[in-house]
Amino acid sequence: MNDRDCHPRRFAGWDEGTFLPHEVFAGLEPPYSDLQQARTVILPVPYDSTSEWRSGSRRGPQAIIDASQYLELYDLELDREIYKVGISTLPQVEPLLSSPQDMIDRVCKVVKSLIQKEKLVVLLGGEHSLSLGAVRAFKDMFPELSVLQLDAHADLRDEYLGTKYGQACIMRRIFELCPISQVGVRSLSWKEKQFLTQRKLRPFYMSDLTSGTASLDQIVDSLSEDVYVTIDVDVLDPSIMPAVGTPEPHGMSWRQILDIMESVTLRKHVVGFDLMEFCPGEGPGSCAYLLAKLAYKLVGYTMPQERR
Amino acid sequence: MNDRDCHPRRFAGWDEGTFLPHEVFAGLEPPYSDLQQARTVILPVPYDSTSEWRSGSRRGPQAIIDASQYLELYDLELDREIYKVGISTLPQVEPLLSSPQDMIDRVCKVVKSLIQKEKLVVLLGGEHSLSLGAVRAFKDMFPELSVLQLDAHADLRDEYLGTKYGQACIMRRIFELCPISQVGVRSLSWKEKQFLTQRKLRPFYMSDLTSGTASLDQIVDSLSEDVYVTIDVDVLDPSIMPAVGTPEPHGMSWRQILDIMESVTLRKHVVGFDLMEFCPGEGPGSCAYLLAKLAYKLVGYTMPQERR
Amino acid sequence: MNDRDCHPRRFAGWDEGTFLPHEVFAGLEPPYSDLQQARTVILPVPYDSTSEWRSGSRRGPQAIIDASQYLELYDLELDREIYKVGISTLPQVEPLLSSPQDMIDRVCKVVKSLIQKEKLVVLLGGEHSLSLGAVRAFKDMFPELSVLQLDAHADLRDEYLGTKYGQACIMRRIFELCPISQVGVRSLSWKEKQFLTQRKLRPFYMSDLTSGTASLDQIVDSLSEDVYVTIDVDVLDPSIMPAVGTPEPHGMSWRQILDIMESVTLRKHVVGFDLMEFCPGEGPGSCAYLLAKLAYKLVGYTMPQERR
Amino acid sequence: MNDRDCHPRRFAGWDEGTFLPHEVFAGLEPPYSDLQQARTVILPVPYDSTSEWRSGSRRGPQAIIDASQYLELYDLELDREIYKVGISTLPQVEPLLSSPQDMIDRVCKVVKSLIQKEKLVVLLGGEHSLSLGAVRAFKDMFPELSVLQLDAHADLRDEYLGTKYGQACIMRRIFELCPISQVGVRSLSWKEKQFLTQRKLRPFYMSDLTSGTASLDQIVDSLSEDVYVTIDVDVLDPSIMPAVGTPEPHGMSWRQILDIMESVTLRKHVVGFDLMEFCPGEGPGSCAYLLAKLAYKLVGYTMPQERR
Amino acid sequence: MNDRDCHPRRFAGWDEGTFLPHEVFAGLEPPYSDLQQARTVILPVPYDSTSEWRSGSRRGPQAIIDASQYLELYDLELDREIYKVGISTLPQVEPLLSSPQDMIDRVCKVVKSLIQKEKLVVLLGGEHSLSLGAVRAFKDMFPELSVLQLDAHADLRDEYLGTKYGQACIMRRIFELCPISQVGVRSLSWKEKQFLTQRKLRPFYMSDLTSGTASLDQIVDSLSEDVYVTIDVDVLDPSIMPAVGTPEPHGMSWRQILDIMESVTLRKHVVGFDLMEFCPGEGPGSCAYLLAKLAYKLVGYTMPQERR
Amino acid sequence: MNDRDCHPRRFAGWDEGTFLPHEVFAGLEPPYSDLQQARTVILPVPYDSTSEWRSGSRRGPQAIIDASQYLELYDLELDREIYKVGISTLPQVEPLLSSPQDMIDRVCKVVKSLIQKEKLVVLLGGEHSLSLGAVRAFKDMFPELSVLQLDAHADLRDEYLGTKYGQACIMRRIFELCPISQVGVRSLSWKEKQFLTQRKLRPFYMSDLTSGTASLDQIVDSLSEDVYVTIDVDVLDPSIMPAVGTPEPHGMSWRQILDIMESVTLRKHVVGFDLMEFCPGEGPGSCAYLLAKLAYKLVGYTMPQERR
Repeated sequence: MNDRDCHPRRFAGWDEGTFLPHEVFAGLEPPYSDLQQARTVILPVPYDSTSEWRSGSRRGPQAIIDASQYLELYDLELDREIYKVGISTLPQVEPLLSSPQDMIDRVCKVVKSLIQKEKLVVLLGGEHSLSLGAVRAFKDMFPELSVLQLDAHADLRDEYLGTKYGQACIMRRIFELCPISQVGVRSLSWKEKQFLTQRKLRPFYMSDLTSGTASLDQIVDSLSEDVYVTIDVDVLDPSIMPAVGTPEPHGMSWRQILDIMESVTLRKHVVGFDLMEFCPGEGPGSCAYLLAKLAYKLVGYTMPQERR
Repeated sequence: MNDRDCHPRRFAGWDEGTFLPHEVFAGLEPPYSDLQQARTVILPVPYDSTSEWRSGSRRGPQAIIDASQYLELYDLELDREIYKVGISTLPQVEPLLSSPQDMIDRVCKVVKSLIQKEKLVVLLGGEHSLSLGAVRAFKDMFPELSVLQLDAHADLRDEYLGTKYGQACIMRRIFELCPISQVGVRSLSWKEKQFLTQRKLRPFYMSDLTSGTASLDQIVDSLSEDVYVTIDVDVLDPSIMPAVGTPEPHGMSWRQILDIMESVTLRKHVVGFDLMEFCPGEGPGSCAYLLAKLAYKLVGYTMPQERR
Repeated sequence: MNDRDCHPRRFAGWDEGTFLPHEVFAGLEPPYSDLQQARTVILPVPYDSTSEWRSGSRRGPQAIIDASQYLELYDLELDREIYKVGISTLPQVEPLLSSPQDMIDRVCKVVKSLIQKEKLVVLLGGEHSLSLGAVRAFKDMFPELSVLQLDAHADLRDEYLGTKYGQACIMRRIFELCPISQVGVRSLSWKEKQFLTQRKLRPFYMSDLTSGTASLDQIVDSLSEDVYVTIDVDVLDPSIMPAVGTPEPHGMSWRQILDIMESVTLRKHVVGFDLMEFCPGEGPGSCAYLLAKLAYKLVGYTMPQERR
Repeated sequence: MNDRDCHPRRFAGWDEGTFLPHEVFAGLEPPYSDLQQARTVILPVPYDSTSEWRSGSRRGPQAIIDASQYLELYDLELDREIYKVGISTLPQVEPLLSSPQDMIDRVCKVVKSLIQKEKLVVLLGGEHSLSLGAVRAFKDMFPELSVLQLDAHADLRDEYLGTKYGQACIMRRIFELCPISQVGVRSLSWKEKQFLTQRKLRPFYMSDLTSGTASLDQIVDSLSEDVYVTIDVDVLDPSIMPAVGTPEPHGMSWRQILDIMESVTLRKHVVGFDLMEFCPGEGPGSCAYLLAKLAYKLVGYTMPQERR
Repeated sequence: MNDRDCHPRRFAGWDEGTFLPHEVFAGLEPPYSDLQQARTVILPVPYDSTSEWRSGSRRGPQAIIDASQYLELYDLELDREIYKVGISTLPQVEPLLSSPQDMIDRVCKVVKSLIQKEKLVVLLGGEHSLSLGAVRAFKDMFPELSVLQLDAHADLRDEYLGTKYGQACIMRRIFELCPISQVGVRSLSWKEKQFLTQRKLRPFYMSDLTSGTASLDQIVDSLSEDVYVTIDVDVLDPSIMPAVGTPEPHGMSWRQILDIMESVTLRKHVVGFDLMEFCPGEGPGSCAYLLAKLAYKLVGYTMPQERR
Repeated sequence: MNDRDCHPRRFAGWDEGTFLPHEVFAGLEPPYSDLQQARTVILPVPYDSTSEWRSGSRRGPQAIIDASQYLELYDLELDREIYKVGISTLPQVEPLLSSPQDMIDRVCKVVKSLIQKEKLVVLLGGEHSLSLGAVRAFKDMFPELSVLQLDAHADLRDEYLGTKYGQACIMRRIFELCPISQVGVRSLSWKEKQFLTQRKLRPFYMSDLTSGTASLDQIVDSLSEDVYVTIDVDVLDPSIMPAVGTPEPHGMSWRQILDIMESVTLRKHVVGFDLMEFCPGEGPGSCAYLLAKLAYKLVGYTMPQERR
């Protein structure tokens, strides 16, 4: 639970502690939640039109924000109060159902405006295809952008269920824009395997991480200076993250994903990141809390210094 | 449970009763389930890309077919074994995720081919927008077609969440093709109300049915000879059908919907019907069974005589 | 909730109100829960080996007893405290899994011993086949016994899934022992229909009750003086009792089942009754509470006078 | 779903329709959701420390507000857009866990300040004991206040589980302040019955409503001019409202509660009302939507004229 | 999700990609799913009459087959498309409820016929007692058969709940037929311990695997040339497989079970295997997917070469 | 499942094996379950009035006792039948809802009387604040008592939500009574961190255990001779214990908690222990079984020798 003693909740002239915070990430209050001053922006996008099996990632952002109300604002590992960098929560982006491309465009437009405001963007999905919108926006600003993808699947199909912009194809589209580095992959189609071979791409497979074949340094070295990180939460092990569409066994532990992200943020410039494909109805409530804590810690890793 | 004694299940030369029926509506077996011979075809379409709140109607068709395995094949009310008209179950239509229109086109194409085979089409959704595909197909064959819509909502918006082909707009699109008669409506937007007034349309509101203002005869009289019936299952009362996206209180009872359908099928030529917007995860399993029984009885009402 | 003020809970010399009652029906305490003195005995049998579709009636008795802790002990309709007749709760009967017949024999043996103690037996199932054990026991003592069956299904198959003692056949077996009167039936197999016709049996169909064709008097008149009542809880409407294996639409309301039972208990000698086929996992918790209240009220109807 | 076309959502200079509304009742936006201008205030209080059996009413307010996002803003029955009276949503009141009295005091204090602002207060619980806080506040302003209680239980115990301020005792406490009129009661303890007899009180029992013994006029006549309405949502039938702690069978229908409230609001001055004891986890999602619609309609009944 | 591009789904003359695959393991299509040509046969047996606590393993086979639709057909570890060996899915075997022995006999009969067709049998349970049927069938053909049991429990009781053929006794029955090797056991009764001591049997306890006392080689060496593998899925750790009747802490990881099976299949002739006691309702959907992937990989391990 | 052969269940003169055991921990029977003779007492306290987010720990004790019916009475690791020390189960302590302090006092009083009877007390919560009652009782008898707290959180706030006796403050209150040693902590508020620093306290953080910084010996050495162990079950990893209010990632494994408890019980005098904050509704049923097994094993560790 939160230690709100030092950041009292006030509402409409009331005594401290009469009202609970509005639904803002981590229950933050002005000035920390203020869009103008906050260095970080949470962007929730409840859209899941192209998911195949178990739908429900549209409810992911709300579930993460709900759970974040119960985060401790102080982080024991980093020994600081991360929220002091300012974390503002935008309202949920309204779905645009005409076609996946249209929705991707909407996300791109919103992210661009946030980049212009020099915010660290934290996109909460929603389905993975939305990441393309974010990458497009960042690519414009950072021409040397590379994308770090933490994911159980390669998502490199060329087309799937009649669209080139569904979740199964989205890294193929992103790869057409900029270099990608895939970590944690443990499930591939035959055609994806062929595509990887053809393009001389090699993911850091989950088995490489387990066997020690792949080191943190290798992962970091595979990236350019400016990095966008897209996390399909199914990269995590189903024991701690069953709430996804296709929960592949033998995934990352909590410690593994933190170690990777810590290394990357230390040595690279992370311009934004996302947490995608969380289907809260498919697992226990602990999943939402884990992702809220993950998002909060990643903000801490990415923004090491507090300006205020 | 089924009385399978008289229609033994055989598989691969095995004794009767060794294997359970495949996943075919009501567990039927050849010749009754045979596409060539069956007069009725169940067409399951697991698609729900434009639903707004609670998704999950993509799982509706499977849940109804699962539950139908436990139907009694003999109908007590009609005093006959309805399945003898032949009811074939097609595999689920694959979603096409490029845009709602593309998916509607796919449904239209499949339904057309079934019309040419002179089948009674029973479409199991999936979201309501798919009904447009069916209506387009029937309109081609039956130029005087009218559509009877049993629904808690009017679905007459012009556009919603960026598309003119989402579930909230679908009766507006259908109305552009042919006359519609709306029954059971109990929730409207202001703009829909204005549209109805402007076009001099008046639904048979749920309150009209309850108060006796609207009679079964009036409903039937509002239709042309050839009728397609589209049922958004939220027309039913939430006490028996909570498993929908927007469960409006004060809906139809089991007996009310049967009475309406019996009257319509007695006096009109029903060319096909659908059951849409069933979200099995949002209510108890009794909902799927109720819809399986409803579909089965409607086939019985629509096909009064058995040819074989 | 209970008004325990007047029947204080004491345990091991503790003050009133320190401990909650053990898991005894309605949380009763001695002397009311005492087997020797109680006129009524609750017999929970958590067995469901022959159920076909949705299992879970094994958990029915526990769920009803759990919910009964929250019953008001005073009954507003009868204007008395029913428990004063004494209601003792036996431990759950251990399943015997060698065959359905063996389990039926065990139930028969237990019920016989309770009859000898002159108890009103209230059997909580578990699957419907267990009722045969109870009927056999009562038939021995009351040679003119008839059985009133409240059920959505006839359960008159001769054999099903390789056994003559499964839930689908159990009324056929009971009918071989004594006359039966079926009320609330709304689903039949073709063979069951033929059997009824052949034997000149006619259930009081649910549609007879709704249309007024069948009166309460007719139901009561169809019974002999000594009556065992077996209630498959799927006789109730799925709106209030979805938690059953095969929830047939258009069932009995709360008031209907009470009216029937009130009429029968007023004019006949009810020797025992059961509540069977409750699958608590298939519906909301309200179902267990409803059945606890039903069981309690039926005890009140059956035992109009308090002796203590 | 909402017809937001005419009340566009704008956020931070964005085009209409880019962002979804914040979590405000019915998704309203300024000026309609503005505390200063709104004539109605939604006050959510997520507190349930004294509930006995199934906890979870602390999650009731959030669930109702979530569901309200999908309400149509136009009301078909009243033929108007109710929200135009202005409905502001306060943040959730923070629980105070030192004792039930302390929390009741907090609610009293908040309600008083809203009365001074001349708002219609709509309290969303949380447990029933909170209503005492509201009644105390209104009693100060309206000395002739009477309380209309719609409830399956009398809640007239003097003490329960060691407190005089728990949900089981709350109407006893309220009755010590002002006259009460109880409607829909169908479960009582023996001591409550004695108390009623002693004080010459007689609830309008649910059976009186069903049998026609109690008329709407009698209910209205039993009230003073200024009325606070407290609704324990278990007054509704478990078929439409299983999501309560103690779901007593044979409760009110949707139409019955609306008829009572329409009569009362037409002839009396309703100063505020509440919806209490909703446990969203105990039933399907349809329950939250029903209560959101009920709250919205009651605002419409209570505030017949729009000033703006 | 599947990469179906190279194995197009065709139905009734339709274009590729119009219909989804029928409910066949992994959504395979002819010729790969063809019973004649397939070298592997999936045999689903939805029976659970003797399970004690939490029932529901009857729903296990269907859940695994449902989940298998979303498997990638290409296996990253084995670098091949396993399905090319041919995997045919039989319809579910109908339960026989007269007694556990009768059902075991039915399974035996079906398995025998599959052995004669030289198929690799993959039995999906259903309760563990069914394995006896399979072992009997294989023992006839392979007189030197040994059985490798992966299980959290020894299942060596002589009788339980009145039957010698329930799940708790089944390895005792199998041990009467042929040698067994038990791996992963971590819960025993006192009598089972005595039985093991008496017979000089020693399971490879889970603690032996963790501590390194037991090596893969020792496990393999304990087996004869022809091996039937029976897997009670509760051998897996509850963190990844909570969906079992008695989920003992400290079980096998995904990697551990794969390593054991890989070793065994490399050095021995595995004639068939089963996955038993999966209760899908007791855990998240990730469990079904894990078991589908496990079954698929075990087919790959067992059938290293593709003939087509 | 249990091996009840050697401890036959008898009831009211019936043959062994006719009735299932009453709801007593592990289904024990006299003399082992007898309060007089048992050396251990299970004390279930279903109270959760001050929990903040997800309520439901009131249902924890019942769920653990339910699950314990399926424990093997023989413990493989300890190679003995632990229950022979005698384990008696008290009825659930009735909640006292006037204030948290009053309830803590009630627990204190009950525990004191058990200490006087020289029982090992095993408190099953319910919320963590109840531990204060137990500690107060033990402190009286053992003036040098220290408290070992296994917990993901420090629970060292001074006040929270208006009370000094809520779950978030309870270790602060206990620390005012006697020394505490905290193990497994991985989430702190800023003020708690300051308090720890100020008081020169240092928890054995979870990261210390993982990195090997903290040894078992150090943990044991930090304690006095007489130790009360309070276990907030959220100390366990969410992969095996998601059923808690605030499930912090990266917690203890099954083996880790056993190793700590084994070391402590070997070298110290453990006077009692508790398992708190288990919310059964928030995770799969495997959680209740794990805790039942944990409680049983801890009794075994704490009571190494059997006297009978």
